[in-house]
Amino acid sequence: MTHLLLIGIGTGNPEHLTLQAIRALNRADLVLIPRKGADKADLADLRRAICAEVITNPATRLVEFDLPTRDPATPGYIARVNDWHDAIATVWAETIAREGGQIVALLVWGDPSLYDSTLRIAARLEPAPRITVIPGITSMQALTAAHAIPLNALAAPFLVTTGRQLRDHGWPAGVDTLVVMLDGECSFQSLPPEGVTIWWGAYVGMAEEIIRHGPLGTTGPDIITTRAAARAAHGWIMDIYILRR
Amino acid sequence: MTHLLLIGIGTGNPEHLTLQAIRALNRADLVLIPRKGADKADLADLRRAICAEVITNPATRLVEFDLPTRDPATPGYIARVNDWHDAIATVWAETIAREGGQIVALLVWGDPSLYDSTLRIAARLEPAPRITVIPGITSMQALTAAHAIPLNALAAPFLVTTGRQLRDHGWPAGVDTLVVMLDGECSFQSLPPEGVTIWWGAYVGMAEEIIRHGPLGTTGPDIITTRAAARAAHGWIMDIYILRR
Ligand SMILES: C[S@@+](CC[C@H](N)C(=O)[O-])C[C@H]1O[C@@H](n2cnc3c(N)ncnc32)[C@H](O)[C@@H]1O
Ligand SMILES: C[S@@+](CC[C@H](N)C(=O)[O-])C[C@H]1O[C@@H](n2cnc3c(N)ncnc32)[C@H](O)[C@@H]1O
Repeated sequence: MTHLLLIGIGTGNPEHLTLQAIRALNRADLVLIPRKGADKADLADLRRAICAEVITNPATRLVEFDLPTRDPATPGYIARVNDWHDAIATVWAETIAREGGQIVALLVWGDPSLYDSTLRIAARLEPAPRITVIPGITSMQALTAAHAIPLNALAAPFLVTTGRQLRDHGWPAGVDTLVVMLDGECSFQSLPPEGVTIWWGAYVGMAEEIIRHGPLGTTGPDIITTRAAARAAHGWIMDIYILRR
Repeated sequence: MTHLLLIGIGTGNPEHLTLQAIRALNRADLVLIPRKGADKADLADLRRAICAEVITNPATRLVEFDLPTRDPATPGYIARVNDWHDAIATVWAETIAREGGQIVALLVWGDPSLYDSTLRIAARLEPAPRITVIPGITSMQALTAAHAIPLNALAAPFLVTTGRQLRDHGWPAGVDTLVVMLDGECSFQSLPPEGVTIWWGAYVGMAEEIIRHGPLGTTGPDIITTRAAARAAHGWIMDIYILRR
């Protein structure tokens, strides 16, 4: 039985690595590194650099594989994602069979529990592997650390959601703090800005980190401009924000 | 100006420490360790063990201080907490003044952004210190790692909340995944259990870790018994759970 180690690596700062993650990487026979093509956002270089820095076990081998792409012809978002996950599971299985590893590590951006598919893909493998998850620093935490702010108001709840949810459903009832991820469209624009404060960050934890905060009404337009310029300059962007009312 | 380093240390597994946390600890002149009295849950020993393990800078000094206790005579929860935070800020200021540190580190359980008062206490210091936050692994992540599960359903939101909120307001509208923290009373008992699955963990990430999962109707009573026994055996408990419907 294959033993899969799903290792959270944090959000781009190699120092986000935990001692547990370093030990796990050094237990692996094989580390699978996805290659997404020319897209800079695959960050394969960062994964290789992290491995080069912390792997001291000479028996640990890095193996790259080509990440399948989503088929835009498949109708329906969920079906498209499911097909894609099937295809990735197949490539993992082929790579592991070819290379012959027993303890196989995958480096997961941030934490494996948060808006990440690695666990869902791993569940498709047959026979079912043994799975160990190593937690990693999330982009939520890299954002709050960069701004030196708490996530929650005293004893109050907060909702973690996506740009699409915010656009489709507006501000949810009964909660005054939102964390918005997976938002390619600055979906905060869909909200009435009165009484709302935003804490935004792009590339949080990385050398490229940019942060902004202030009243949504005045800070929102600044973020839209800053985001577009950063995206054009780097060729890719990842951003996240907190809204509080 | 004092430079305060608020360092997330994870949830009791010394290997949750990040490289960034280790580097920050070694930058500090002074590390403040709270002493809460005979209560085992102060985990001062764990903090000292972590420091002993990773601090290599001979100039870094550990200093203990007695953590003030909440005054049960102060009426109102918020007022009681505010007074308590004032008292802690005063003790920090006195300790720093007496010991003379410039870069002062505090070890924060889990991550400093999540249901933690360290940032709010730090904001009370005068003159205002420079504050640097180092993110740490949270109990949410230690829980999902222990169960090897994702926090969110595909592209769906989740709410992080407290036991009291759950008791007072029931299951919030529009969200199918809840993370419940700060719950001394197994508040899941207040919910109709039909169609709800629970993933529960106590002492997650620690040697004492206990986890349970299953349908709320059958697993809930087991958790109540298990929790009471563990609490009696250890003298203290910290637990957290995810509910999904
Ligand atoms: C597929 S999710 C993965 C999240 C990751 N598992 C985590 O723990 O943060 C990608 C989203 O995470 C956020 N994100 C991840 N890394 C980020 C970074 N360094 N800066 C800002 N946002 C980031 C963005 O909202 C992005 O759309
Ligand atoms: C004051 S909050 C601090 C949370 C911490 N800052 C974090 O990032 O997890 C304390 C609550 O966190 C949860 N918690 C913290 N450590 C835990 C552990 N090792 N196992 C289970 N729950 C834990 C419990 O719900 C507890 O009531």
